[in-house]
Amino acid sequence: MTTPQNPNFAAIDAVVAQAAAAADFWADSSATQRATLLRGLADALEQQQAELVVIADRESGLGEARLNGEVARTAFQLRGFASEVEAGVPYRQVEDHAVAGAPPAGRPRLTRVQRPLGPVAMFSASNFPFAFSVLGGDTASALAAGCPVVIKPHSGHPELSRAVFALAAGVVRAQGLPAGLLTLAEAPNRAAGTYLVQHPSIAAVAFTGSYQGGKALWQAANDRERPVPFFGELGSINPLVALPAVLEKDSEALARTLAGSITLGCGQFCTSPGVVVLLDSPHSQRFVAQLAEAIAPIATHRMLTPGMQQGFEAAAATVAANATSVFAPQADGAGPSPRLFATDAVSFIANAHLREEMFGPAALIVTANSVAQAAEVLEAIGGTLTTTLWGLDADNTDNRQLLRAAQRVSGRVLFSGVPTGVAVCHAQQHGGPWPSSTAPQSTSVGFAAIERFLRPVALQEAPTWVLG
Amino acid sequence: MTTPQNPNFAAIDAVVAQAAAAADFWADSSATQRATLLRGLADALEQQQAELVVIADRESGLGEARLNGEVARTAFQLRGFASEVEAGVPYRQVEDHAVAGAPPAGRPRLTRVQRPLGPVAMFSASNFPFAFSVLGGDTASALAAGCPVVIKPHSGHPELSRAVFALAAGVVRAQGLPAGLLTLAEAPNRAAGTYLVQHPSIAAVAFTGSYQGGKALWQAANDRERPVPFFGELGSINPLVALPAVLEKDSEALARTLAGSITLGCGQFCTSPGVVVLLDSPHSQRFVAQLAEAIAPIATHRMLTPGMQQGFEAAAATVAANATSVFAPQADGAGPSPRLFATDAVSFIANAHLREEMFGPAALIVTANSVAQAAEVLEAIGGTLTTTLWGLDADNTDNRQLLRAAQRVSGRVLFSGVPTGVAVCHAQQHGGPWPSSTAPQSTSVGFAAIERFLRPVALQEAPTWVLG
Repeated sequence: MTTPQNPNFAAIDAVVAQAAAAADFWADSSATQRATLLRGLADALEQQQAELVVIADRESGLGEARLNGEVARTAFQLRGFASEVEAGVPYRQVEDHAVAGAPPAGRPRLTRVQRPLGPVAMFSASNFPFAFSVLGGDTASALAAGCPVVIKPHSGHPELSRAVFALAAGVVRAQGLPAGLLTLAEAPNRAAGTYLVQHPSIAAVAFTGSYQGGKALWQAANDRERPVPFFGELGSINPLVALPAVLEKDSEALARTLAGSITLGCGQFCTSPGVVVLLDSPHSQRFVAQLAEAIAPIATHRMLTPGMQQGFEAAAATVAANATSVFAPQADGAGPSPRLFATDAVSFIANAHLREEMFGPAALIVTANSVAQAAEVLEAIGGTLTTTLWGLDADNTDNRQLLRAAQRVSGRVLFSGVPTGVAVCHAQQHGGPWPSSTAPQSTSVGFAAIERFLRPVALQEAPTWVLG
Repeated sequence: MTTPQNPNFAAIDAVVAQAAAAADFWADSSATQRATLLRGLADALEQQQAELVVIADRESGLGEARLNGEVARTAFQLRGFASEVEAGVPYRQVEDHAVAGAPPAGRPRLTRVQRPLGPVAMFSASNFPFAFSVLGGDTASALAAGCPVVIKPHSGHPELSRAVFALAAGVVRAQGLPAGLLTLAEAPNRAAGTYLVQHPSIAAVAFTGSYQGGKALWQAANDRERPVPFFGELGSINPLVALPAVLEKDSEALARTLAGSITLGCGQFCTSPGVVVLLDSPHSQRFVAQLAEAIAPIATHRMLTPGMQQGFEAAAATVAANATSVFAPQADGAGPSPRLFATDAVSFIANAHLREEMFGPAALIVTANSVAQAAEVLEAIGGTLTTTLWGLDADNTDNRQLLRAAQRVSGRVLFSGVPTGVAVCHAQQHGGPWPSSTAPQSTSVGFAAIERFLRPVALQEAPTWVLG
């Protein structure tokens, strides 16, 4: 395949060429080779954990406790995908033996195998400097599938990205594997990112980030002469519906839990609950007061980048201009003080400004006058990673309506607890209808994430050597 | 959800509203309900087979033998998806029990379920008036998944479409099911098709047809405020590589088989072999002569529509202007006479005009000077439903290179026989990289086709009644 010639992006051409040169080798690699690499990366990450967390904290301000937890998750993911490979997931075959006679019942022998897509361009996230960055879930699942990964580091943590990449490159080298399996593409601006996505040797894209940036890159992938799969996680409002019955008792504890979830990591989680839907009732009113009391004094740490702080303030100002502020901001931390806004369901459904994501420590209370109207609020949101439904204990018509709406718009539906914190397991689904994902049938968290980078191929009457 | 108001498309609004109104009922329907409907449709189709085939033959000119076979396939598909539903495919769950302790190992209980996407807009194909039309594979798999289907009939067989739809509506009615499960949207022009694809209540699109028309509708789906999955099968060249060793003996029989495949159905199959890659050798030269002798006198039936005949003649003229004609067209049938063109690999790779699909009874011989160059020919094609590799018996470096290239660009790789004729089974994969599919990880033929219309949802700590 001809490499495009653009002198401004010679460095991108060079690393993509390395990745392309390694693609056949890695596509044909054994489970042992892939698992050994993934476990080697996890081990190396943990060995340098102390130094890396210092760098990550300096660049992100997320704090050592959170960052140590994130390293543990990152290593867990790498080892988890090693186990998936050892269990044969990317090598699985579906066999249909030949049937004599005329079609439709008669048929040749067919074997359905899975093939890796090829070099993946992976755009790191700002808010998970370890778990969705250089060696994060996208990289782990792509390597497990048999794809080389061209890593686009996030500008929010450049030194950490280089340090983790150096560590990873060392593991690749020590295991005698081609350097092209993991490469770093510094793509410091939109044009460079577009160039990477449109490179003819790139076979798929994984992206976690903002709606605006992600949509532009998705468009760039679609504008290629040959569009390729684009797995983008772009934005999510994560509504939480609390029915009055659940607020009758323990509402103060629930308010504290929710306040903690809204402000966790200064609200910089893709699953941060941004809309709280309540039914018009005295219990709901008391809950709003308790939530306000719990959240107002929480001091946040600084946001990841000045740009994200500006983006949050702008989004919060838009909501403020279209809704009521429940209290005047008062907490005095390094980051923005928490906000709580309120509106009614009719306004929320009618006004798109109220449905924009505030990526920071803020939420909007939406009061509905019925369960049916609460369901309409969910439908108006349209696409979200998660919906949380508190108090859906009984099987009745109202609850079924809410459940249907939640399932229609979400990748994950919670019936207790809060949406922040995403378990890495087989049943996880992180990705819902647009805009929460550009590929709503895929997940970017959990072990099913490997499927994004595999494509089925049917082999008809294959000789023995082909099926290995 | 608000229905858009456009008086020109009131009929489309009306049927989509019917489909949307039936969506919840069908999403929650039991395996028995779905299987009973699918089998009822198959039975009704067979009961009216004789009358329907007469109409289909009058409109399509495909001949009664072929059309009777197609009815058998259509009924086989409907019953096959009924069996899939009864086996629990759309109801399957992945369960991760709760694990005590902190993340990443600690986790809540999660259950991954599959949910139907919602109303599917299904664009019928011209070349399969039964099997990829009103009650074809897309409709069968969408109904099996739990989605209502809004059928856009093909203008090439309007009377048949209405007759099959009337039959289907009768089955729906007789089983006491909502009429919105199957509706007919007459969308006679591009604007109407775009309107249907962009209707906010349409949750996914299935399309089989031309590259130009399909790409425009794919773009329309992506231009929605909330883009939805678009499963389009747009075009395919279906290269066949014949290594010299396989042409040493029986080459005359192989030439006859290949000539039959190229001209089958007047070449109007998405898997019709359009490019024949040969290595420069005396055996290859003899094979070209044998193929020419076999194909030149074949009389074809008329093409499906005048537009398709014009399109074929235009594409064949483009190839003729850029390659050599192996013989002067001579057969005298109701349809176009078969064509055979020849070029070399370097020209084929350099000249995009030679890689355009000729949807009709024609093929282009491409002569390569090495197996490596034959692999480059495949890479230049980029995306195709099928690649056929004749003579790959031995495991050696050359054959591995060809195999890799074929797997990279194709949804199905054949090691003997011809690509026309697509078995309906579990291992089938019909769909490869762009442009053969807009969603290359999905299949439109075979039982995995149901996955296109399902979306995973993770339920966290779900009450018993929710998991049913």
